[in-house]
Formats: sequence, structure tokens, C-alpha cells
Amino acid sequence: MTERSGGPPPLGDMDGAAFRQAGHQLVDWIAQYLEDAEHYPVLSRVRPGDIRDALPSSAPDAGESFDAILADVERVIVPGITHWNHPGFFAYFAISGSGPGILAEFMSAAFNAQGMLWRTSPAVTELEEVALGWLRRLVHLPEAFEGVIYDTASIATLHALAAARQDAVPEVREQGLAGRPDGPGLRVYCSEHAHSSVDKAMIMLGLGLSSLRRIEADTQFRMRPERLAEAISRDRRDGCIPLAVVATVGTTAVTSVDPVGAIADICDRERLWLHVDAAYAGAAAMIPGFEATLDGCDRAASLVINPHKWLFTPFDLSAFYCRRMDRVREAFSVTPSYLQTWDTEPVRNLMDTGVQLGRRFRALKLWMVLRHFGADGMRRRLAEHIRLAALFGRWVDASETFERVAPVPFSVVCFRASPPELREDDSALDDLNARLLDAVNATGDVFLSHARIKNRFTLRLAVGHIRTTERHVARAWELLQEQLTALHA
Amino acid sequence: MTERSGGPPPLGDMDGAAFRQAGHQLVDWIAQYLEDAEHYPVLSRVRPGDIRDALPSSAPDAGESFDAILADVERVIVPGITHWNHPGFFAYFAISGSGPGILAEFMSAAFNAQGMLWRTSPAVTELEEVALGWLRRLVHLPEAFEGVIYDTASIATLHALAAARQDAVPEVREQGLAGRPDGPGLRVYCSEHAHSSVDKAMIMLGLGLSSLRRIEADTQFRMRPERLAEAISRDRRDGCIPLAVVATVGTTAVTSVDPVGAIADICDRERLWLHVDAAYAGAAAMIPGFEATLDGCDRAASLVINPHKWLFTPFDLSAFYCRRMDRVREAFSVTPSYLQTWDTEPVRNLMDTGVQLGRRFRALKLWMVLRHFGADGMRRRLAEHIRLAALFGRWVDASETFERVAPVPFSVVCFRASPPELREDDSALDDLNARLLDAVNATGDVFLSHARIKNRFTLRLAVGHIRTTERHVARAWELLQEQLTALHA
Repeated sequence: MTERSGGPPPLGDMDGAAFRQAGHQLVDWIAQYLEDAEHYPVLSRVRPGDIRDALPSSAPDAGESFDAILADVERVIVPGITHWNHPGFFAYFAISGSGPGILAEFMSAAFNAQGMLWRTSPAVTELEEVALGWLRRLVHLPEAFEGVIYDTASIATLHALAAARQDAVPEVREQGLAGRPDGPGLRVYCSEHAHSSVDKAMIMLGLGLSSLRRIEADTQFRMRPERLAEAISRDRRDGCIPLAVVATVGTTAVTSVDPVGAIADICDRERLWLHVDAAYAGAAAMIPGFEATLDGCDRAASLVINPHKWLFTPFDLSAFYCRRMDRVREAFSVTPSYLQTWDTEPVRNLMDTGVQLGRRFRALKLWMVLRHFGADGMRRRLAEHIRLAALFGRWVDASETFERVAPVPFSVVCFRASPPELREDDSALDDLNARLLDAVNATGDVFLSHARIKNRFTLRLAVGHIRTTERHVARAWELLQEQLTALHA
Repeated sequence: MTERSGGPPPLGDMDGAAFRQAGHQLVDWIAQYLEDAEHYPVLSRVRPGDIRDALPSSAPDAGESFDAILADVERVIVPGITHWNHPGFFAYFAISGSGPGILAEFMSAAFNAQGMLWRTSPAVTELEEVALGWLRRLVHLPEAFEGVIYDTASIATLHALAAARQDAVPEVREQGLAGRPDGPGLRVYCSEHAHSSVDKAMIMLGLGLSSLRRIEADTQFRMRPERLAEAISRDRRDGCIPLAVVATVGTTAVTSVDPVGAIADICDRERLWLHVDAAYAGAAAMIPGFEATLDGCDRAASLVINPHKWLFTPFDLSAFYCRRMDRVREAFSVTPSYLQTWDTEPVRNLMDTGVQLGRRFRALKLWMVLRHFGADGMRRRLAEHIRLAALFGRWVDASETFERVAPVPFSVVCFRASPPELREDDSALDDLNARLLDAVNATGDVFLSHARIKNRFTLRLAVGHIRTTERHVARAWELLQEQLTALHA
């Protein structure tokens, strides 16, 4: 055990000098890591159990220096990281932090402010209002949407559907759902391409998966409104109570956009809660030429956008906007005596807007990122990602051995290898593409993911990292061609 | 707009030199802030709207330098912070970060690793297993408990009760609760002193508040097991289905400990899920002489301990331990095609253990804190907090004008001013104590909170911050006496 930079004092915190020394060391370490990220294999190469087995099974009795800990981070942890900072990270949604976001998280951890009540740190509550107001204006949503920050879109969608349930069945808070004379029950609707968080919300809320109607999509993967209307009518005829529709702007697999306006018409007519999952693509509405991305969403009851996905804000920060935040509060406001306040002026207490009592100071990072890059800087970065995806899409379209599987509305390209001689053999193509995916990912230069689209094994290239440039996208294309040749020779 | 340290580049992230400069500046700023924390008023003095009104209502178009942002943090944000780092913070539970925890969060934000799948960063999944294993051993829980990190104890308790529901009503995932022929419904039990997160979980799960039975406590604020047994029998007679009992080790207002062993006997007999909320006091089980804190908890189905409360880990990190994590997975595992993997060896995918798909790399901070201070260092710090609370309790007991309102099992003292001439007048005492609380908090040197205990307005002094010493507790006592004299003169 070395004691060079700051062994622990007998009591109290790490002392100031030790914190400074370790902190400065860590700044340089992180700067170097970010600069070098591209030289690590994107996808970690450790085997299951490697990390666990490399570490002791009990905490040390005596404290250790920061140097010793940092040495183990390099030796054990870094090899076990899949580098979301690698500019060749093209999997899932390529979520990305950024320098100002990382620094903001450092500051937020230092404040360690907990924003359950306005008074437990007014800046947490009010900066959240400010930062969410900035984002709301950038994506052209009306002021009627009140915002609250949650950790993830899954939690946002869960609260949206809880509010919808509260709206339709006000006695649910007190009485619950069991024993209700609803006959076949309550119903929620989403497209067949909606995110799994809708399923999880149905389970959590006690609505059950069988109460979720997944509506068929058109050939462009967009929910078919006429099918939605039919499903609602059928359910009403069967005595069910429709509660809510979840529309998606930027579905997870293919980033398709449901026709929110047409869906809103139906929700208005049927008096249903419309929640929009714009976790990924909502940010695009700030780009010149993409203002229509959120068309119709001004009529939604609630909407979620994830700045941790495509706005350079370190994970986690999910922005939930709601026209009816009163319903969220009606559902979840519970104030025990030890949290009662006697503020002389009305204040918002974040604990009233959801299940989580404690709230991190997340707004700081969104605010610092938006300020550091500026609205123009954000727009230009997102537009560049869209340009890169379109470019890659054109390479695929021009190729004889690859084909595009879905439109490219934003920064994600869905495609697959389809050598002419295998075009009729779906099972051989599935197998070839799975092996191709493993082969390109094994190079360490890129990480792509996949989805089953129209029951075909499809590759996905998602552009999103702040350091990704044309060179990285070109490298992915080069590797795909090389590895396909090697596999299919 | 200054451009001294790192205006944003045209595209890409903040460049390395700018990040280094801003980072070093921030390390010094944070070190200074932590050293100075004691010189700020603990409780923020801003008025509602001050922070919001001090900031522009739209994001800037052009990017700004880190210097400009930091200047606004000092000017606008810091005055709006209630300083949880002030050693005179004695409110609620005095949650505390620490130097190594802050540095770990900085590193975690830099990695920006998202641990939904093992492969999306094996280190996230496996270090979580390691760090939770360390904590489990420190508090003497058996290996049968599998651990998972959530953000908050509210989310942990929500998942515990969801798992209990899944265990008792396996068809709930598919069918939901509506229209079930359960007659009067499903029932959950907790003490009258249990945390409001149990209420919120009941609402979210569709069980409803009326399905929660709050069981009477004894004079020491501990759930009375015989009353629990009676309530269960009565409910069974009435055709209800008892699901689960939530016992608390360290209730929020008075930190009392329910008789978990006796409650476990009842849960065994009745085949109920026993969840233990040890969010605050669970950590105490590692202190010599306090090993019995979690007695009986080895028989629980699930248990939650919050390292962000009393283990010097920055908010948020809640450790959920469960003997039946299979039930959590049964409830919440949903794998869409785009997240399917074909790992050759079995791995744990964190997304299967709950609603949240995305998982931050939280384990890093718990691991770094435990290593830096060592198990001995943690024990000595917690023991010192307990010593300080006991000391304060003795001062109260020796005073003629104050009285203790509850036992002091850990680091929280519940007390109130009770000048002899007002002892018979509860309403005057309530009023006096509320004014006393405002008066001591207005000094800026301390922040205490309150609770209604036995329907009396009670003051709470919670020791928990890593920098709190005897001097700070003595200052609180001095202020209470001074201000009482001023108010009651």
C-alpha cells in the first residue's frame, strides 16, 4: 500500500492537499483517456468473471492511497470498459458525454445537493426549470409543458402512464386496481416498434402486458393510425377502458417517426392521454430543416427527450415534459411530517413529481453543456451526425453486396450484407450478417449492434458520439467490406 | 463572452488543452469549496424565483467559455445551494459524499459507460457485484443475497414489492390486477413509522394506499409483531391476500428498529415476502458493538442499504439485496431484438433487474470510497457519529429546558425545547419549537429539521457528514440554548 498521494486521515475526509493532488492527477488522466479513447478496442475483450476474479472479495481493512486505486483502475477496470467514448462506437444509440458535461458532473458530485424539496437546494429545482425551459424552446414545444428531470426515459414513461391511469381512474391511488369491476380491463396502445420500457411500465403499474395493444406499423415502420382507431373501438365494444397511447418519435430499432398529429386527433376524440417517446430523436427538432420532427407533439399530454442520448450530456438525464403535471402530483405527492415545510411563497418540491424522493443535481450538466457549445454548436453537431449517417446510407445504397433495410430519418442506418447469390436465402443471410457483426466488432475499431427488422437480422450503425467524424464512419464501411469479403470468399 | 479557457471548437468536443485547463481550475475550485463549506450559510437564503430570474430564459446561440460558466456558478448557483457539505448540516439524514467519492463520480462521468448489458461494459456489472459483496460482508449479510444498485431506496422498495407481487400472483405480469377476483384485494404491511416510499410503491404498483396496513408501534417506535399477526389474520378472514411486510431498521423520523426476527417468524409462517428498509441504519451493522443492528435480516427476502446516506458515497447509490432476484427478473426481464446477445458464457445483464434499462457506473464510487477509507476507517467514522449523537443526547438529558423525545440508537437525536412553565401546553410548545427551529436555521451555522412525533413538533439533529466534529455539534447546542433564551425571554 503506497501512501504517496493522500492516504486517509484518521477521521474526516481526504484532506485538501491530498484532494488537490489526486484531482489534478485525475484531470490529466481523464484528458489523456479521452484523447486515447480511439486506441482502445471499443468492445471490451474481457471474459465473464475476469474483473470479479481480479479483485479481492472483501474490502481492505486499512485505507489505501488514491495512487493505488488509480493503478487498479488502469489494470482491472479499463480493460473491462466498453468504450462509449470511442468515436467508432456505433451501437444502440451512440450516447455521448462531453467535456463540459463531465466537469459539471464533477461539480454536482462535490455539491452533493439533494433536491427533494425546494429548500434543500433551491438551485437544483430552479436550474432544472431553467435548463428544461431552454431545451423546450430549442425543440419548439409550447410553454404549457412543465418539465421535470428523471434518470431515464423508462422512468419518465412509467410516470406518464401512471399519470394517465390517475387521470382516467382517479380512485386508483387509494383503491388500486385489484377487484375493480373493469371487466377485461384498462388498455394502453403503442406501435409494434415502441420501446420495451412501455412493457415494463405496464408490468410495474399492475396493468399487465396483455393490456398493451401493439399496433401494426406501415412499411416505413410508422404506427398506422387507422389501426389504432380500430383497436380502440374494438376494445370499447368489449367493455375495456382505453387509457393512453404511446407514440414514438425515433423508434429504437429503425428511428421511424409515428404520425403524431393523426394519433393526437384520435386521442382528442377518445379523450386518451398521449405520451410521446422522443427519447432519441426529440433533440433533432432543433436542427434547421428538422423542425417538423416534433410536429403534433404540442398536442401530447407528455413527452420525453433524453439529453443523455444525443445532447452530449453524460448519462443519466431524461427530460420529462408534461401538460398535466398536476396528475403526476395527484398520483405521487405524499408528504410525511418530517418533510413538511412552511414556505411563505409557493414553491415546487421535486419529490412531489414522482416515486423518487431524492433528486440529484442533474440540471447542472445540461445547463453547462448547452452554454458551452451554444444552441448553434448543438445544432451543427447534430446536423453533422445526420450528414454522416446519410453519407453511410448512400455508400450502402451504391453497394452491390449490401442493402439498406429502412429509411434514415436521423443518424441511424439499418442495413445488411446481401451478396447477390444469397438474396433468396434469408436464413443464410441472417447467419452471414451475425457473423459479419461479430467479425467487425472483433477488430476493436468499431462497435455496431443489430436488430431484427421484418424478421431479418439487420445491422445498425448509429452515429452519436461527439468525437465521431467522417473518418470513423469510413473506417466502419471499410471494415464491413473487408470482413464480408473474408467471410464470404 | 470571454474565450480564455476553452471556447467550444467548431465541431467535436472541448479540446484536450481546454479540458485540462478547465479541469485543473475546477479541482482547485472544488477543494476550496469543500474547505470553505463551513463559512456558507447552511440553508440557502435565496427567495423563490431568485435563481430562475437571474438566468436568461433561452440558451445562448454562441458557445461560452468555461470561465464564463464558472463565474455564473459562483454568482447565481452557489447562493442557491443548501450546503449538504457544511459540517453543521444536521437535517433529515445528513447524507455525505467524500473526496474519493467525488473523484470517482468524475471518472464515472468520463467513462460514460452504460451498463444495461454485461457486454456494454463488463466492469460496470462486475464491479457492482464486487462492491456490493464487500458491503454485504461488512454488514454480515449471508451470501444468498444477490445485489443490484439502484438510484434510490424508493426505487429499491418499489422493486421489492413488485417482486413480492410477482411471487404471490405470478400471472400479474401478463394479466395485471384489474378485474382480478381478489375480493377486497392484496395487502402489504409496515409500521406506522415506515417511510413514505412504501406509500408511493403501493400507488405505482396499482395496489392502492388502502391496501397498505400501517401497524401500530410500541412506545419505542418499533412495530408491534402481535399487532402485525392480528392484522394479517383479520385480512385473511376478510378474504384479502397478504403479500409482503416492510420492516424498517432505522425509521426516518426517530431511527427506531423494528423487531425483524419476530416479524420474520410471522412472514415465514404466513409465507409473506419480508422486505427490510435499512436505508439509513444498515451501515451501522459494520461498527463493533452494533453487529446486532441487522439481526433477523438474514431471513428477509430483500433489504436495502443506502451508501449515499451514511457511507460517504455521493448521491445517488442505493444497494438492493435480494434472496429472490429471480422474482425481480421474472417480473421485469423484457428483451427486445435489438438487445439480444449470444454470449457463450452466462452473464448477468443489469437491465433484467428492474424498470430502468440504462445503468450508470455507480459501483465505482462505492468501491473507491471503501478502498480509500478502508473498512476500519469506515467503522471509526460511523462510530464517531454515534458518539457525537450520544453526547448531544446527554446534553439534552441534562438540560432543564430541553427534553429528549425518543431513544438515540444511532446518530440522530429527537428532542424539543420544553421550558418547565410550558410543559403542560402542547400547542405552545409546538409553536415555540417551530420558531426555535427557524431561528437556529436562520443563523446559517446549522440546519436542523423536524418531525411530528407522538403528535408533538420535534426537532431532529442528525449527524452524518464526514466533516462534522464535536465542535459543530457543540455549536448546534449553543445556538439552540441562545435562541431559546432569545425567544422565550
